[in-house]
Amino acid sequence: MPYAHDRVRAILWREDALELLDQRRLPGETRYQRLTTAAGVAQAIRDMVVRGAPAIGITAAYGVVLGARERHAENPDRWRTAIEDDLAQLAAARPTAVNLFWALRRMERVIAEISDDPVERLLAEARAIHAEDLAANRRMGELGAALLGERGAVLTHCNTGSLATGGYGTALGVIRRGYEQGLIERVYADETRPWLQGARLTAWELVQDGIPVTLLADGAAAALLRQGEARWAIVGADRIAANGDVANKIGTYHLAVAARYHGVRFMVVAPTSTVDMNVASGSEIPIEQRAAEELLTLGGQPVAAAGAEAWNPSFDVTPAALVDALVTERGVVLAPDAEKMARLMTEVH
Amino acid sequence: MPYAHDRVRAILWREDALELLDQRRLPGETRYQRLTTAAGVAQAIRDMVVRGAPAIGITAAYGVVLGARERHAENPDRWRTAIEDDLAQLAAARPTAVNLFWALRRMERVIAEISDDPVERLLAEARAIHAEDLAANRRMGELGAALLGERGAVLTHCNTGSLATGGYGTALGVIRRGYEQGLIERVYADETRPWLQGARLTAWELVQDGIPVTLLADGAAAALLRQGEARWAIVGADRIAANGDVANKIGTYHLAVAARYHGVRFMVVAPTSTVDMNVASGSEIPIEQRAAEELLTLGGQPVAAAGAEAWNPSFDVTPAALVDALVTERGVVLAPDAEKMARLMTEVH
Repeated sequence: MPYAHDRVRAILWREDALELLDQRRLPGETRYQRLTTAAGVAQAIRDMVVRGAPAIGITAAYGVVLGARERHAENPDRWRTAIEDDLAQLAAARPTAVNLFWALRRMERVIAEISDDPVERLLAEARAIHAEDLAANRRMGELGAALLGERGAVLTHCNTGSLATGGYGTALGVIRRGYEQGLIERVYADETRPWLQGARLTAWELVQDGIPVTLLADGAAAALLRQGEARWAIVGADRIAANGDVANKIGTYHLAVAARYHGVRFMVVAPTSTVDMNVASGSEIPIEQRAAEELLTLGGQPVAAAGAEAWNPSFDVTPAALVDALVTERGVVLAPDAEKMARLMTEVH
Repeated sequence: MPYAHDRVRAILWREDALELLDQRRLPGETRYQRLTTAAGVAQAIRDMVVRGAPAIGITAAYGVVLGARERHAENPDRWRTAIEDDLAQLAAARPTAVNLFWALRRMERVIAEISDDPVERLLAEARAIHAEDLAANRRMGELGAALLGERGAVLTHCNTGSLATGGYGTALGVIRRGYEQGLIERVYADETRPWLQGARLTAWELVQDGIPVTLLADGAAAALLRQGEARWAIVGADRIAANGDVANKIGTYHLAVAARYHGVRFMVVAPTSTVDMNVASGSEIPIEQRAAEELLTLGGQPVAAAGAEAWNPSFDVTPAALVDALVTERGVVLAPDAEKMARLMTEVH
């Protein structure tokens, strides 16, 4: 397979440490950060060395392995108490992507069952989380591509590829599979301000795969959709509420509104680890507010006059009513609502 | 009046030359470019030393003065033929803002009537165009503010202030007047990629006026409008077709779609020099495509992987059906259409 997830790994466990591809330096530089403590991993998530909901969950799981090793070495009798601090730090790293809490809960369940040296068991669980995510992406790629219909262009937002996941990608996995099947001729990618994940990361992944990619300013999306070339807008998710509302990168909701206005279908691709049945609707999802400097400065230099303020939510919520298809590894939900979401999450798959 | 248009002049005629505030360097540096030839003026418009439809028109008018002086000095008998080249160069500088062609036509009409040294007559005409634009903005400020209704926040896009016009501004003129009248409590400003006119220029003007301004990423506008705080989206225009369709900075159409979806009213503020009765609808308006590098690089450094393409239209078209109010110096047109536009442009005012 010629896909970037085989060449590029955002998250590596190598020589007893976690290595994260520093995504802030892409595409100019491919440099890994080597992490040996849970605190270091929490910091890396907070600073966006790694980002993307599934990738954050996987990273946190490996962070728990590092924390357990450290705590067990300090005091084999008290590591289970001591690691609570690490779990709390990791959980506090970023608030919106629920995959983080989901992965930590899985690791906690294993912690509760361990009596001896915890590293091996926890590492196996982190690796399982990682491998299951990659497998889920492969499955979603198939399911999503099957929805595409006749050949055309698609529009995506932010980065949902190998870099944002355990590999292959969510929305970008569907795009990869659709391209492979000849159903996608070109990918339009919002540059995705303020972090420019579209320009820096999505374009980088697609160029490596030889998939034609055209960047545009986020505000140009409606003008593009009006032209009728793109038939689907395809995005990922950071958290999906029990009624199907979708929290995702800021700008996603704007895109969903424009897609509906133009009759362009809107597909959300996310593993069920992104679904949070404990929040009834999107209005209950905590939305991370990031520093005003992300908008007020550019490359460290002020871009706006001193005295200007900035509103910088990192995510927005797209109501389920604007979602035409939610693709998960358990299956596709068309026009999601509370009833369909409950069925998806409770039926045996 | 404590307004920036009194402190900041984007376009100055001083000591027999045109001085343009170099808007590419704002807000970090306030530096004027001194221009003494029509060719230099055309280049400055092309390179966006000056931008904004009314400001481009005024600048081009002064450019004709410089061209006439040069051509008349070269050969007083042939200046009227020689200046055709200058007029053509100025007209070719940027394609979308119709104020450029409108101003050149006004100057051409004066040229046709001159028999002796042309400089004084042409300078008087350029100054009249400049002064009329400022007066139109003052008038539109009154008319637009009268539509605002109860106190609240407004959202704007790009820069439509003193820097984009002969002074005071179009959309920003309405905002200035509305703030002065206590009807506006805060201005939300799209940063406006790729040139960041919102961050660099609009915030700078508003901070100088002491008007509270909050920047946001263009893609965050729908999430903001969903919160219900902003009651109007207020923008300028680069060209308005005979049916009321509005060409304006890329992202305007996206904003208009989001405003309509949320029941937020959408106001376009532009002098009648921006109306082009020779184009039946927006689809006939030539839309400038600018260099891909504006999206592929940042501060001269590549931001996207080599091999990525970019779609970079500088403007988009908002259909008249999405415009709740068009404010001109001749009056307000609610829900503009071809019939109302014809009445606006032909009735004696």
